[in-house]
Amino acid sequence: MISALNLPVTLTARAQELTLRRASDDDLRALMFLLADDPMSATRGDKADDSDAPSYRSALTAIVTDPSNDLLVVVVVDETDEPLATMQLTRIPGMVRRGSTRLLIEAVRVRSDNRSSGIGSAMMRWVTATAAPAVEASLVQLTSDEARQDAHRFYERLGFVGSYRGFKYKARLSRSSSDAMLQ
Amino acid sequence: MISALNLPVTLTARAQELTLRRASDDDLRALMFLLADDPMSATRGDKADDSDAPSYRSALTAIVTDPSNDLLVVVVVDETDEPLATMQLTRIPGMVRRGSTRLLIEAVRVRSDNRSSGIGSAMMRWVTATAAPAVEASLVQLTSDEARQDAHRFYERLGFVGSYRGFKYKARLSRSSSDAMLQ
Repeated sequence: MISALNLPVTLTARAQELTLRRASDDDLRALMFLLADDPMSATRGDKADDSDAPSYRSALTAIVTDPSNDLLVVVVVDETDEPLATMQLTRIPGMVRRGSTRLLIEAVRVRSDNRSSGIGSAMMRWVTATAAPAVEASLVQLTSDEARQDAHRFYERLGFVGSYRGFKYKARLSRSSSDAMLQ
Repeated sequence: MISALNLPVTLTARAQELTLRRASDDDLRALMFLLADDPMSATRGDKADDSDAPSYRSALTAIVTDPSNDLLVVVVVDETDEPLATMQLTRIPGMVRRGSTRLLIEAVRVRSDNRSSGIGSAMMRWVTATAAPAVEASLVQLTSDEARQDAHRFYERLGFVGSYRGFKYKARLSRSSSDAMLQ
């Protein structure tokens, strides 16, 4: 967890009161469901399959015990405490822009039956207005698949500028196979 | 520093022997020069100005003391030990793709009189073939300004796929001014 972030906090999305809080082990199943509740993620292996629970649990532990990372969820106040949305934040020190710190947003997901409800906007406004200054980050950054045009308009409305190309390289986990792939 | 990375290491770029090693305080001026030796960075405030040295020094300390970050430089073997290139690596645990760890590359710079010399390729091949498996990252990612078309072709030749849009938001460092900006 990033200790400089003052959580939980109340967010308001179209008159609906929400709580933004840190994820815990109890949220594991809901997080797996949120990640699978998206056609693009499902094609990348996030299928909420029970057999994957240990991998997700290890990742959750790695994130919440890392002082530069936080995994957050949004829940409805006075309801079941079931996460409707999630995102990960990473604080990254850096040399460029005269030694600026960045705040990276990854894995933003809103449950499909709650999309276009203002939850995503409320989350992003909290990141740019509250989380970034709290961790002394002068730049907030994220990448979004080129196919997600709706998401791009969403980020642009919030003041993000999409002037970068995001590149990914799928690495093999053993050195020998990775070396072979590069031949 | 990311302790799982076995450094220094020898890289070969077109028969030239190079050493990839961790940056130290002694590299501060050379790093400031490398960041300023790029028209795009200069417009963002990286001008190798002496008055900015304390900011860069703080950032360098923050990076090298962070267990998820490393700042690397490339020097010519048997020469002045002056950095010809630099890059930052950040190891990021994550939930998506069944709990995959990512390795983020930021701030890749090669000194202008050494570009197109194979140094950048040698650095990237080390990241994808050696660093990624060493930190158990199945994904290597970076963003590059849309205006850097040469850089995009460079990354594509190395096997990176540029299928994402990169968004940035400039945050104000005090909460009150940031809130005001969002009105």
